[in-house]
Amino acid sequence: MSRQWTVYLSGEIHTDWREQIETGVRERDLNVALVAPVTDHAKSDDCGVDILRAEDDKFWHDHKGAKINAIRTRTLIEDADVVVVRFGDKYRQWNAAFDAGYAAALGKSIITLHDPELTHALKEVDGAADAVCQTPQQVVEILEYVIRQQ
Amino acid sequence: MSRQWTVYLSGEIHTDWREQIETGVRERDLNVALVAPVTDHAKSDDCGVDILRAEDDKFWHDHKGAKINAIRTRTLIEDADVVVVRFGDKYRQWNAAFDAGYAAALGKSIITLHDPELTHALKEVDGAADAVCQTPQQVVEILEYVIRQQ
Amino acid sequence: MSRQWTVYLSGEIHTDWREQIETGVRERDLNVALVAPVTDHAKSDDCGVDILRAEDDKFWHDHKGAKINAIRTRTLIEDADVVVVRFGDKYRQWNAAFDAGYAAALGKSIITLHDPELTHALKEVDGAADAVCQTPQQVVEILEYVIRQQ
Amino acid sequence: MSRQWTVYLSGEIHTDWREQIETGVRERDLNVALVAPVTDHAKSDDCGVDILRAEDDKFWHDHKGAKINAIRTRTLIEDADVVVVRFGDKYRQWNAAFDAGYAAALGKSIITLHDPELTHALKEVDGAADAVCQTPQQVVEILEYVIRQQ
Amino acid sequence: MSRQWTVYLSGEIHTDWREQIETGVRERDLNVALVAPVTDHAKSDDCGVDILRAEDDKFWHDHKGAKINAIRTRTLIEDADVVVVRFGDKYRQWNAAFDAGYAAALGKSIITLHDPELTHALKEVDGAADAVCQTPQQVVEILEYVIRQQ
Amino acid sequence: MSRQWTVYLSGEIHTDWREQIETGVRERDLNVALVAPVTDHAKSDDCGVDILRAEDDKFWHDHKGAKINAIRTRTLIEDADVVVVRFGDKYRQWNAAFDAGYAAALGKSIITLHDPELTHALKEVDGAADAVCQTPQQVVEILEYVIRQQ
Amino acid sequence: MSRQWTVYLSGEIHTDWREQIETGVRERDLNVALVAPVTDHAKSDDCGVDILRAEDDKFWHDHKGAKINAIRTRTLIEDADVVVVRFGDKYRQWNAAFDAGYAAALGKSIITLHDPELTHALKEVDGAADAVCQTPQQVVEILEYVIRQQ
Amino acid sequence: MSRQWTVYLSGEIHTDWREQIETGVRERDLNVALVAPVTDHAKSDDCGVDILRAEDDKFWHDHKGAKINAIRTRTLIEDADVVVVRFGDKYRQWNAAFDAGYAAALGKSIITLHDPELTHALKEVDGAADAVCQTPQQVVEILEYVIRQQ
Repeated sequence: MSRQWTVYLSGEIHTDWREQIETGVRERDLNVALVAPVTDHAKSDDCGVDILRAEDDKFWHDHKGAKINAIRTRTLIEDADVVVVRFGDKYRQWNAAFDAGYAAALGKSIITLHDPELTHALKEVDGAADAVCQTPQQVVEILEYVIRQQ
Repeated sequence: MSRQWTVYLSGEIHTDWREQIETGVRERDLNVALVAPVTDHAKSDDCGVDILRAEDDKFWHDHKGAKINAIRTRTLIEDADVVVVRFGDKYRQWNAAFDAGYAAALGKSIITLHDPELTHALKEVDGAADAVCQTPQQVVEILEYVIRQQ
Repeated sequence: MSRQWTVYLSGEIHTDWREQIETGVRERDLNVALVAPVTDHAKSDDCGVDILRAEDDKFWHDHKGAKINAIRTRTLIEDADVVVVRFGDKYRQWNAAFDAGYAAALGKSIITLHDPELTHALKEVDGAADAVCQTPQQVVEILEYVIRQQ
Repeated sequence: MSRQWTVYLSGEIHTDWREQIETGVRERDLNVALVAPVTDHAKSDDCGVDILRAEDDKFWHDHKGAKINAIRTRTLIEDADVVVVRFGDKYRQWNAAFDAGYAAALGKSIITLHDPELTHALKEVDGAADAVCQTPQQVVEILEYVIRQQ
Repeated sequence: MSRQWTVYLSGEIHTDWREQIETGVRERDLNVALVAPVTDHAKSDDCGVDILRAEDDKFWHDHKGAKINAIRTRTLIEDADVVVVRFGDKYRQWNAAFDAGYAAALGKSIITLHDPELTHALKEVDGAADAVCQTPQQVVEILEYVIRQQ
Repeated sequence: MSRQWTVYLSGEIHTDWREQIETGVRERDLNVALVAPVTDHAKSDDCGVDILRAEDDKFWHDHKGAKINAIRTRTLIEDADVVVVRFGDKYRQWNAAFDAGYAAALGKSIITLHDPELTHALKEVDGAADAVCQTPQQVVEILEYVIRQQ
Repeated sequence: MSRQWTVYLSGEIHTDWREQIETGVRERDLNVALVAPVTDHAKSDDCGVDILRAEDDKFWHDHKGAKINAIRTRTLIEDADVVVVRFGDKYRQWNAAFDAGYAAALGKSIITLHDPELTHALKEVDGAADAVCQTPQQVVEILEYVIRQQ
Repeated sequence: MSRQWTVYLSGEIHTDWREQIETGVRERDLNVALVAPVTDHAKSDDCGVDILRAEDDKFWHDHKGAKINAIRTRTLIEDADVVVVRFGDKYRQWNAAFDAGYAAALGKSIITLHDPELTHALKEVDGAADAVCQTPQQVVEILEYVIRQQ
């Protein structure tokens, strides 16, 4: 059987771009395992204090959650062949840029996905990418080309 | 002679935080080599087309500059013992978060420097840091403690 | 099928914390392979001289056993995605702290598990951990969250 | 000029074993740079809250200090050719065992230094060591032999 | 079941050498996964602008395609046990030599495949190879010997 | 299902020690994949000139064979969890010692297997081993203990 | 004193591009160590048989030289911060492309230097580069910008 | 000043080949640091029990010495640019072959030095070497060529 490709989908969690990629990958029957961070915003923020004891101080509240999320995030990025990093028009999304830097240092193939108006602000991140897409459909086409040669 | 520590100062280029750290390090006579990305905003944006041929398309204008800046940035981060990452209140600063991710994957010690109101947005980056500072003075004190034990 | 996570359970061998984690993982039907050092105290102490020739000197008796145990321990830690390190209230448990250091240098995700009264003594080990738990149940909940997002 | 060897002295901070090694190294005029963690107990415990804001919760008080100390500790261990790990008869010294595990995973040469009565408890740590000493003098003799062939 | 060997077939895309190796491997029933770059010349040249927006400048046209092809190429070379590099008598084939250098730095086993008249020009590449073949049949025989001992 | 362990059997090819280990492993139903270099002496010597063109010069005759054998040897050692190195009483067996050094630098667990009279000559190789056995039976017992805890 | 940058100049040995870069670097007083392969064509071809015994077979004549040259080449590339790869209009220059691939796999910053008419043939190599220059003067300007920020 | 090359001289300790290389290197004024294992046979055998407590069992007597010698040997091999491995006609010299394997796995350049009659027995070791010499003079000439291009 053909090689399975593992693709990590990092970044924005407020639009359905992951679902669009998933649909595209399934329609084309690509041998791809799509993985992602926890995308439930509330859970992702509160997992630390939900599971462990509560914190009065918001810094530690956030910190405990961030560390637990990192168990998932870094393990899956290290596993991935390709890391897709999506930047939307809201929020600061520093975690997406952090993931891109982390992936770059590990030598992963990186695909960024964002609107053209973010081009200047993202030039360093795009500079580390193998492809810069504007639509999830383009990401799927790249995956299909890379995996199936067509 | 004592070991020289190399500290990379990543991020914001519009306030004098690097100078404050430099002054503090000099006043305390710490054996530290401070390094940084190109901090001249215009040069950093245009170095690609200034040195190589011009580009009509803004994307490639930015891209060529970003790649040349990366020669400096990544070489110096790989050299560093400690990477300080500063986030200000303006601009998106995705390159700073990218540097933090890059440094984290290389196992560098990371110190972040930002106002408390950015805490939630930076929780993943702070989660990868060994210390989270609010003032350049605190960064200098950590360097002094780490290097000189006092 | 979903990714299998490999979790190494290091440390104390005199209470049933491993069984509690195993039960929790099975009840929640998590795709986890739990691995561990040899947990039979007598065998672990004597494996060297049981299999190879006896030693008059207790140092070499211990040494031969420790080296054979290391074949298992290090191979499984290197395989693991997550290393859980348990400290109990008896014995010195230096091997648990050694495992934690070994895992940290390899960039593994680390979860510690111990009573609050050990906090000060374990501060360096906890400092390298992504989560500090007090009960096996919390470890299971973190694994469930990290693997299944809930 | 001959190669300088860097030797990290990890562990116990309540007896003068580091000074004895330093004296021995100086008397024999060995080209050795001795490095160590912060050995001032109070400073080492409180550096986090001394430099950054105070913490009500003792866990975070300790945590912040441990992370800052780790900047020094890990940088210097990664630099070292040889890591000497000293275990005394007091305290739990899990940080010493953690350092030994960290050094082992990095492939450093390890020398342990402890009384014979700790042999059984330290068998896994000693199993990763290239030499097990009982006196600082023996450590110095090994360094002299290794560096100067005599 | 026996271990599957992954063999990357780099280089010339204008003769049927890959098919000959595939036929040989199948006839001998070797447990080998053969992988390769995209071998459709036109697609390989135009994939960048086919999927993403068009480029007026031929340099960027080529560049975008090359980067997307690199996602496939480097991922598969990093996966491979053996990299076979074929040089034909046409074109400059710098990408084949680039792949050979890339594989060499990763410590992969390399087999080159070319006519004797290219020997002098390829001496550095052959110097990094474990075997220098003149026919696809020889490559197959080496694979059979290496995998099956006969 | 339990983890499969991969064990590379390096060294002597003139006695049946590999078969003894294979029998022992099968009898105990251990989940072990045993791998080895090409053990047919004549084929191993002549594979280079059998497959590629003949060589007048014995040095190159040997060299071509050694390089092709290295494709198998190094790939399988890099795959292995444990490397068993057997030294017999005949021949110089420098390739066995070379394999041991290669495995040691990769951080593999090493078990040596030889008669006591070779102890002094093999002290550096044994020094890098986790266990020093005299019989294939002992190797099997160590594998059983390490894999199955009994 | 400022950091010294090490720059490896790979490729074409028949024009004076290395001298031009050297002159430019000296005129601007940049803290750069320029290193290169052996650039004496005859010596580079014959070093193997000049130092060791002669070879009747041209393949081995070339092979011995290539291996000795590789001692210099790979050691210096591994040392370098930046690798400049020059392609001229003559010869096949597969060694230059090999060096580029080798440098890319090591994560080195790469600058290519060639005429625009080679763009299509070099697209994979340029795709791995941080800058694509047409003149040695541009290479010097990039080095000056990267090192001195101006 | 030109780069200093570090060359480790492994193997035989009963003839003056190291002195010949040292003389040659000095006469040609090459910028080379020559390093070596402890070459005093008696000290090398007994260093373990001379410094630490005596051992009744010859195995542990040897073992303790081998481990202490390894501190020197591995540190210096890891530092070296080139590892020269000398095989004489006496003793089994498994430590020399071990060093060669260790150096090969680290990607070091290897030069072997031995009489032609050892060619067949050393074919695997020579297969990993960049040059196979018969005289110390040839080693010096290679070093001069590699370092000084002449």
